[in-house]
Amino acid sequence: MADYILAKYISKHLNKEVTLKGWIYNIRKSGKIWFLIFRDGTEFIQCVVLKNEVTEKIFDLKSTLTQESSISVTGIVQEAPRQDIGYELLVKDIEVIHIAEEYPIALKDHGVDFLMDKRHLWLRSKAPFAIMKIRAEIEQASRDFFNERDFTLVDSPMFTPNAAEGSTTLFETKYFDRKAYLTQSGQLYSEAAVMALNRTYCFGPCFRAEKSKTRRHLTEFWMIEPEMAFFDIHDDMDLAEEFVNYLIQHALKNCRRELEILGRDISKLEGVKTPFPRITYDEALEILREKDYKIEWGEDFGAPQETAIAEEFDSPVMIWRWPATLKAFYMKRDPEDERYVLGVDMIAPEGHGEIIGGSQREEDINVLLKRIEKEKLPKEDFEWFLDIRRYGSVPHSGFGLGLERTIGWICGTHHIRECIPWPRTMVRLKP
Amino acid sequence: MADYILAKYISKHLNKEVTLKGWIYNIRKSGKIWFLIFRDGTEFIQCVVLKNEVTEKIFDLKSTLTQESSISVTGIVQEAPRQDIGYELLVKDIEVIHIAEEYPIALKDHGVDFLMDKRHLWLRSKAPFAIMKIRAEIEQASRDFFNERDFTLVDSPMFTPNAAEGSTTLFETKYFDRKAYLTQSGQLYSEAAVMALNRTYCFGPCFRAEKSKTRRHLTEFWMIEPEMAFFDIHDDMDLAEEFVNYLIQHALKNCRRELEILGRDISKLEGVKTPFPRITYDEALEILREKDYKIEWGEDFGAPQETAIAEEFDSPVMIWRWPATLKAFYMKRDPEDERYVLGVDMIAPEGHGEIIGGSQREEDINVLLKRIEKEKLPKEDFEWFLDIRRYGSVPHSGFGLGLERTIGWICGTHHIRECIPWPRTMVRLKP
Repeated sequence: MADYILAKYISKHLNKEVTLKGWIYNIRKSGKIWFLIFRDGTEFIQCVVLKNEVTEKIFDLKSTLTQESSISVTGIVQEAPRQDIGYELLVKDIEVIHIAEEYPIALKDHGVDFLMDKRHLWLRSKAPFAIMKIRAEIEQASRDFFNERDFTLVDSPMFTPNAAEGSTTLFETKYFDRKAYLTQSGQLYSEAAVMALNRTYCFGPCFRAEKSKTRRHLTEFWMIEPEMAFFDIHDDMDLAEEFVNYLIQHALKNCRRELEILGRDISKLEGVKTPFPRITYDEALEILREKDYKIEWGEDFGAPQETAIAEEFDSPVMIWRWPATLKAFYMKRDPEDERYVLGVDMIAPEGHGEIIGGSQREEDINVLLKRIEKEKLPKEDFEWFLDIRRYGSVPHSGFGLGLERTIGWICGTHHIRECIPWPRTMVRLKP
Repeated sequence: MADYILAKYISKHLNKEVTLKGWIYNIRKSGKIWFLIFRDGTEFIQCVVLKNEVTEKIFDLKSTLTQESSISVTGIVQEAPRQDIGYELLVKDIEVIHIAEEYPIALKDHGVDFLMDKRHLWLRSKAPFAIMKIRAEIEQASRDFFNERDFTLVDSPMFTPNAAEGSTTLFETKYFDRKAYLTQSGQLYSEAAVMALNRTYCFGPCFRAEKSKTRRHLTEFWMIEPEMAFFDIHDDMDLAEEFVNYLIQHALKNCRRELEILGRDISKLEGVKTPFPRITYDEALEILREKDYKIEWGEDFGAPQETAIAEEFDSPVMIWRWPATLKAFYMKRDPEDERYVLGVDMIAPEGHGEIIGGSQREEDINVLLKRIEKEKLPKEDFEWFLDIRRYGSVPHSGFGLGLERTIGWICGTHHIRECIPWPRTMVRLKP
């Protein structure tokens, strides 16, 4: 009996007989020869069925096998320079496992809504397959990056006890006889954790009940959030730049096949170089005004403004030193000018928008108390967070990178819903 | 100026002057010498302050520095065979960053409830520090194990559209104008994913609104769930065994310092050997009856029964071939006897209970439809799941490993709430 192998290892078995188990992606027929495009979830392989190489029963399978039927196929691995992967299988035997009913997804264009309704099947198609492979690579590369740099993974909680920041975008859950809220960010917890473990990251789902249907929003998304004791805003920006560059170089090195499947213009990713440009909010305003945007000091940037700024650069651009009024209460004030905070946003090229938000955190309890009072936040809910500043307060910083937006940029995907296996949006909760 | 280093790297700087930044874990005074137990979240280091080696101002800090005050300390790295890590610091200079208020956690015993209320501070203590380090190691080892074996990470969704299995332990969330439920397991989604990617795993938070206050329950816990196309129940058990053994060997190799901090009896972990015992449910019944448990065929095992069975073995024991009535509708019936399903539970030694539940999945749509009908499950909610059996159904299997229970076993922790940074139970939602 031939060895059962995964299709991705086919090149290691040249001229040998192997068995593959998987599904039929497509069939092309032509008289005394037919071609079966086979996939097993690790690779797509062309299998050649010749009339004089198989029994009549096997040859006649061409009329019974349907798209997505499952089979076990045995054959000889041959070189095939015209195939993407350089190899094909000369079929000796086919064992049918299950004949698929008429498959709803043809190899032609469907609308994305239809495909998302069939997400459990659509994942089998080439483009979603490639995006999921890249997603898995980027997730592991993110962990490797922080693991290699003395960070300890500290998972933040999903259930949080109060709507402390009073946000309207919180999901509320019945929690026995009270209410809980789903986390929007692990940052406050990570601030406590770095006082115990120095450098930490959390990486898990976050939830935002945003009533926006833009191509950059999901109600459930994954975020990687490093936090570092004894880092100031410049250390923070250095790390963010090193991290994002690491991900891009990793994708260029390890995901070339998947990027080709997606038809991604790889030269755009190859154009990313460190150091990334760093401009202040005030400098960003000047760029916008030169481009005829009417915008006042203190106004936030929307997607069009972000894209307009990003267009000026080939690499992601970091915008830092923001008006305090635009940013969260925990950001450290700029000691040189109280109107600003030491926060930073990183904007991806090609219109993919903000992928990182970060800051140096306010470590002075008195400044923090004033901010909490001024913003009318419920002080009692923050007592544990204030404890971090009562017992050995130290300078510290961190940031959060949105996974799906980053993958959207790497893959050149228009809508980030394609960058998560089971997207959840305001209008989508299935399958 | 001396180089700033993380304390864990102290051994690389013997006889050199270095600067550490961190917190005061403890101070011991004795006339012309005082000792500062310093921690920076990467290691605990004894720092020696000698009257004739520092200025009077530095020497007198012994009366102003409090527990958990933050400092920057500069000194010479010396060998110190009597210290755990073999090195200490001869202090030359101390810069005070922040004097801590009176710290609520003394180096004496507190009740766990008090410590959990102060979880954001308690993480700084030695035992929680060690457990968090082990948790991070085990999480990465889990990912490495599957990444090295051709598995693709496919994150399952947190929001699910319906209470399909009709469970009373689901958390319900307002989702715009409807309801959503928080995931209890990614399995059904992984079954769809393996048809696209062959071998997948998901690893994320799961939620169970269990009204139990036992030492083995959390409302929010992390689970790692591999799923494999073309694996039968025996392949599934082989993989589960290889995986758990990998985690134990990894902990023994990489977490020895942390296990020593916890006072763990390492010989118990060293006693774990493959192959793990595999017994059927019927054989487990016999063991229980020999131990005078009154139990009928078809009854489930509780914690005492699990512990009684586990006591018979040094390694985890796999119990398989369960009465179908005890297990979920998606488990494959034993072709040799319809009263059984091809499910497996793995029970950890030393009373740590079930750490794995898995099964071969039913791939025959007609059998599955009968189960759905018999259990009065809403068929329309499972249409997408049934699609997996309509289009190229194949044999497949998988399992789920509970992260906190596994860490509890490795660390020898009594209650699994200590094995997650921010535990959530029926009675705890803070901090």
